[in-house]
Amino acid sequence: MYQALRCDAEKIARGAIAAVSPEAAVRRVLTGKTFSGRLYLVSVGKAGWKMARAAVSCLEQPIERGIVVTKYGHVEHPIPGIPCYEAGHPVPDENTFRATQAVLDMTAQASPEDTVLFLLSGGGSALFEKPLVEGTELQAITNQLLASGADIVEMNTIRKRLSAVKGGRFAQWCAPAHVEVIVLSDILGDPPDMIASGPAAPDSSTCTDALDIVKKYDLTLSERALSLLHQETPKELPNVSTQIIGSVRQLCKAAGKLAEELGYEPILLTDHLDCEAREAGRFLSDILRTHADSGRKLAFLAGGETVVHLTGKGLGGRNQELALAAAVGIQGLSNVCVISVGSDGTDGPTDAAGGYVDGDTVRALAEQGLRVADVLAQNDAYHALKAVNGLILTGPTGTNVNDVAVALVDFSPNAR
Amino acid sequence: MYQALRCDAEKIARGAIAAVSPEAAVRRVLTGKTFSGRLYLVSVGKAGWKMARAAVSCLEQPIERGIVVTKYGHVEHPIPGIPCYEAGHPVPDENTFRATQAVLDMTAQASPEDTVLFLLSGGGSALFEKPLVEGTELQAITNQLLASGADIVEMNTIRKRLSAVKGGRFAQWCAPAHVEVIVLSDILGDPPDMIASGPAAPDSSTCTDALDIVKKYDLTLSERALSLLHQETPKELPNVSTQIIGSVRQLCKAAGKLAEELGYEPILLTDHLDCEAREAGRFLSDILRTHADSGRKLAFLAGGETVVHLTGKGLGGRNQELALAAAVGIQGLSNVCVISVGSDGTDGPTDAAGGYVDGDTVRALAEQGLRVADVLAQNDAYHALKAVNGLILTGPTGTNVNDVAVALVDFSPNAR
Repeated sequence: MYQALRCDAEKIARGAIAAVSPEAAVRRVLTGKTFSGRLYLVSVGKAGWKMARAAVSCLEQPIERGIVVTKYGHVEHPIPGIPCYEAGHPVPDENTFRATQAVLDMTAQASPEDTVLFLLSGGGSALFEKPLVEGTELQAITNQLLASGADIVEMNTIRKRLSAVKGGRFAQWCAPAHVEVIVLSDILGDPPDMIASGPAAPDSSTCTDALDIVKKYDLTLSERALSLLHQETPKELPNVSTQIIGSVRQLCKAAGKLAEELGYEPILLTDHLDCEAREAGRFLSDILRTHADSGRKLAFLAGGETVVHLTGKGLGGRNQELALAAAVGIQGLSNVCVISVGSDGTDGPTDAAGGYVDGDTVRALAEQGLRVADVLAQNDAYHALKAVNGLILTGPTGTNVNDVAVALVDFSPNAR
Repeated sequence: MYQALRCDAEKIARGAIAAVSPEAAVRRVLTGKTFSGRLYLVSVGKAGWKMARAAVSCLEQPIERGIVVTKYGHVEHPIPGIPCYEAGHPVPDENTFRATQAVLDMTAQASPEDTVLFLLSGGGSALFEKPLVEGTELQAITNQLLASGADIVEMNTIRKRLSAVKGGRFAQWCAPAHVEVIVLSDILGDPPDMIASGPAAPDSSTCTDALDIVKKYDLTLSERALSLLHQETPKELPNVSTQIIGSVRQLCKAAGKLAEELGYEPILLTDHLDCEAREAGRFLSDILRTHADSGRKLAFLAGGETVVHLTGKGLGGRNQELALAAAVGIQGLSNVCVISVGSDGTDGPTDAAGGYVDGDTVRALAEQGLRVADVLAQNDAYHALKAVNGLILTGPTGTNVNDVAVALVDFSPNAR
């Protein structure tokens, strides 16, 4: 392993994650800010507790009332005056419905001149929900859609109409009070109507779309459900302003800035990475081989969410697979490395955030009797990287804005 | 389809291929050049005839004698005074051995002060060979190596020692006459001992390596073959100078230069691309989505040789698959496109050099009832691209320095 490279790579990856922590992101936009009327705080999502705590500690304006809805185990300690609900994720449960009702009751008190500060993060679809049909029917409809091969857009078109809060309806409920939405995005491209199913975003789908889907897949629905599909979702929400405060784009930007501070020229390749993890790793290694003798210090950045198609029963995650796959193409090059991390600190079902490889990794693996091709066939990147000290361990970070891979080229090896 | 983008993309791709044509490349380095002593011309490979013809027409120095060895059907017409042999490829045949012997007999006449001008292109491994064991034994050994899972380096280590011309031995045969090697490379990274099995390149493998391989795979060999494995290949060839005149690097550089002339900022990603074709296409589309609204004119270049793992029985090639896969991620973007072409003009078993896609391609395919995912599952990119006028047709170009993909971003759509 090349310690100086490893050190740079870790500084960049860890620093970028810190820059998109819920605390840092919320403080950046809310410090010194005031809102009209009384302020109601609603903080929903996996980062709900952290975002609320940061808001409470940096806002100078008093909070009239507030509610947090987050996943089980995500409330670290009580926040004075703000009830914190924990609920089911990824499947909503009774606590989801109870917490959501509490939010609706609280915001019903808002006057036209008041503000609802709505802090939203990934996981909100399950954590914030008030279904308009029975849970059993909702499940039956979902199952029919899944079985018929409907895509995610079609699923959402139907489900938004069966919910009292999705598809812009929560913001509609709050109107005419102003809704200030602050988003930590876990979806590439930050589509506002997709993040948490868009409780405060105008819905682009229509009743006609919904009824076409019913016809296309010949869905069986109760009269109640069918009548709900005829009720339009809001197409305009003049009482809403939305700000994305953290996303994979910010993660990449932060990584680029840190790389620049370390003397690298940052080159953003993409913040939409969505291909197979190991192939992305190979592509990055191809880029490094090409530029290894450029005599420049370069940092290639690729943010997004790669995918892994399982073929084996090993342990790993998409970031670890990406890094491990990159090791082959850079084998023997002493001035390049790849680090890839998930901003949530938990890559796949492992305790690692991701992996690090450099030109020495393949040799080190061979010493342990390991070949990259075999390891990838088993999807066992975790154990292989562990054997060569290639795991990046951060612990759960409390944020989730997807992943970033950083491919570094230092000056030629002789220059070191 | 966006005609202006298509026009730029084709100009860049076709111009880059033209720049690495055997004629253009040979003329660039040989025009006005003279060599010491009498000049013997040996031109071997799939581009052998074209390279020889260009050399004959641009050299001012008279050629004492010359021989061309190329693939069947590749001699377009006779070259006065230069016998042209056609032989078997990818499997050597009797004509291979006859032509190679003619080259050895001719170069045996060279005096120490003379020059052998050795023009080398892809396909040379099969077209230039004099085995030192019987053809049947050579085949038996190759079969044993293949069955045992030996890699390409191990295969070559053995085979070079069973040949009178591979592994630097042709240059050794010519010594002390000077051998001037001019290479059109079809292998990524241009390893001189791999191109055509390196007839004029020092061999980095040793007899010890060869005998280790025999032991490792428990190979059955005749006494003759075994004794050949004890004979060392040349490790130094002071009578040789080598110049790579065409390779995927030049292809990328030429594409970058043409893009620049059209107002794009060229960004070389890699000239070592070797991942799965459709994943490379996706990565390029991710890059384009990220930069589509940058307000800059950008040309991302990726050269190399991607791979395709067949799952269907359709018609296509790696460049067509790469392009088609990129269409999904850029759907709806009116200022970006991807073109990917093989420099030989024949992508896979098709009459197309590659494919072109832009933000309109997915819509156009849907109009024909085609979905990219289904087409890729069938490996049927050819028919899909044909249906939307997305094929790039050049005809066989007579060169082969692998492929180049170009991903263009024009100014924002409103600026057009």
